[in-house]
Amino acid sequence: MFNNITIIGCGLIGSSIIRAIDKKKLSNNVTIYDKSKDVISFLKKKNLPIHFSDNLNHSVKDADLIILAVPLGAYIDIFSSEKIKFKKNAVLTDVGSAKKEINKIIEDLNLKDISWIASHPIAGTEDSGPQAGFAELFEDRWCIISPSAKAKKEDIKKLKLFWEQLGSKVKTMTIEEHDHILSITSHLPHAIAYNLVRTAINNKDEFKKDVIQYSAGGLRDFTRIAASDPIMWRDIFLDNSENIIKILDNFSINLEEMKKAIKEKNGDKLIKIFLETKEVRKEIIKAGQDTKKADFGRKKD
Amino acid sequence: MFNNITIIGCGLIGSSIIRAIDKKKLSNNVTIYDKSKDVISFLKKKNLPIHFSDNLNHSVKDADLIILAVPLGAYIDIFSSEKIKFKKNAVLTDVGSAKKEINKIIEDLNLKDISWIASHPIAGTEDSGPQAGFAELFEDRWCIISPSAKAKKEDIKKLKLFWEQLGSKVKTMTIEEHDHILSITSHLPHAIAYNLVRTAINNKDEFKKDVIQYSAGGLRDFTRIAASDPIMWRDIFLDNSENIIKILDNFSINLEEMKKAIKEKNGDKLIKIFLETKEVRKEIIKAGQDTKKADFGRKKD
Repeated sequence: MFNNITIIGCGLIGSSIIRAIDKKKLSNNVTIYDKSKDVISFLKKKNLPIHFSDNLNHSVKDADLIILAVPLGAYIDIFSSEKIKFKKNAVLTDVGSAKKEINKIIEDLNLKDISWIASHPIAGTEDSGPQAGFAELFEDRWCIISPSAKAKKEDIKKLKLFWEQLGSKVKTMTIEEHDHILSITSHLPHAIAYNLVRTAINNKDEFKKDVIQYSAGGLRDFTRIAASDPIMWRDIFLDNSENIIKILDNFSINLEEMKKAIKEKNGDKLIKIFLETKEVRKEIIKAGQDTKKADFGRKKD
Repeated sequence: MFNNITIIGCGLIGSSIIRAIDKKKLSNNVTIYDKSKDVISFLKKKNLPIHFSDNLNHSVKDADLIILAVPLGAYIDIFSSEKIKFKKNAVLTDVGSAKKEINKIIEDLNLKDISWIASHPIAGTEDSGPQAGFAELFEDRWCIISPSAKAKKEDIKKLKLFWEQLGSKVKTMTIEEHDHILSITSHLPHAIAYNLVRTAINNKDEFKKDVIQYSAGGLRDFTRIAASDPIMWRDIFLDNSENIIKILDNFSINLEEMKKAIKEKNGDKLIKIFLETKEVRKEIIKAGQDTKKADFGRKKD
């Protein structure tokens, strides 16, 4: 399908793609580039059938598929290299969690004879780095692709098939739809989790130690989300800021309504709120996005 | 230790206590009372070695240990029954998640020769009802006990041992300390989860179906918490309203600070916030309150 594949950035996602390609025997010609020496030396020890490149421009020049798996903030550096030249008719994709700003960077390059198709595999754990990656990360997870106007139809098909071979279910949508939906399903929960953990663990509180000790009553579940990669999340918040601010404003309105109900001891109002959200859980389980089991979608130890 | 044990209310917690007593052979004389016919008929089918009582006053009159495992809002009904009389020197406890208001109800009764010792086993799942209970629910979980001033020392020791025999680690603290700490570790996260899910799933949003479809990116984890028993949580929010309002106000302040950083594209500020919360996760794992595994503290399927 794709003869030569180059993966730029080999953290959790990039290294999982490498492992999945290897496991499923999808290509014998995988080249990787990562500017971190630690990442490279870790992957060298893994004995994966990959080529290591220490030059970004060299690494991409023969690639039929280039996958950017770096934080959103690093795209600008990669594309500001004047020497970067892609092979004619190559497919360029990424794995970023927000699309608007990075899409502008790439569209502004006005790349000729290249199919730029943004990808977002909705997969990941709270861990980061190549040591956290695993071949099954994409299995049964959604991957959203957003093809640019100039992307060739056959390339869209090929990329869709590529993600399907990694185990994903693929959905196509526009960049605007992607950024709106993901601001709700992923960016909002992360923003809230960060705020929640920050509010709960107050170093000035004389009971801080106790709060950690008894965190199993709810707080603990949020600390997992709030432990995600800071650089990745900074970039997402900056890239998708408009959508995120809008949904956070809605959150604040709802929070004030709940506070009012608590202050006024309005039990009926509270019950109404809680019943609404209980319903949502059922819809999510029905849509196959969760099971009653706890370890769905996570790495098997 | 306790010859006769009476459990009032047999939902998730009450029925788990029954099962744990049975599994560990802690007493042959367990009497239960629950006003729900469904609960009773479910438990009758389970063939547990327990006595069923259909009269609240009868059920407690010979009990050496009475465990209230009903929603906080139901305490007032139980104690407003003028006929309720406990055996002399009995130990009275509960399993409620907030303490201030219910403690007032019980202290106002001015019970003589009774050791009132509030308990809060920090254990539970998002499910409710006796079908959700299991004998191992309390294993390795904290149980906080708050003895009243008149509780006898030997009774405090006995109750502590009882929870330890169910598998819990027991900690003693005042009702005020309990309500402050739990407002942070448990009530805040639940309030936030309810608001988050309510904000995310907006029936007016044309992308509602997509939001559910792609909820695996973070939202899904919150829906589990926001699916907890509405009546139980209404009562907790009303009982511990002062502490909860205070911590929700702190949350709002932090949220506004984050919104400001996003609006101003202040990436350094965002990184600072995220690094703080990443640290907390490490402290929680170090304190033994979580592992890298996903199913810690949950029912094994």
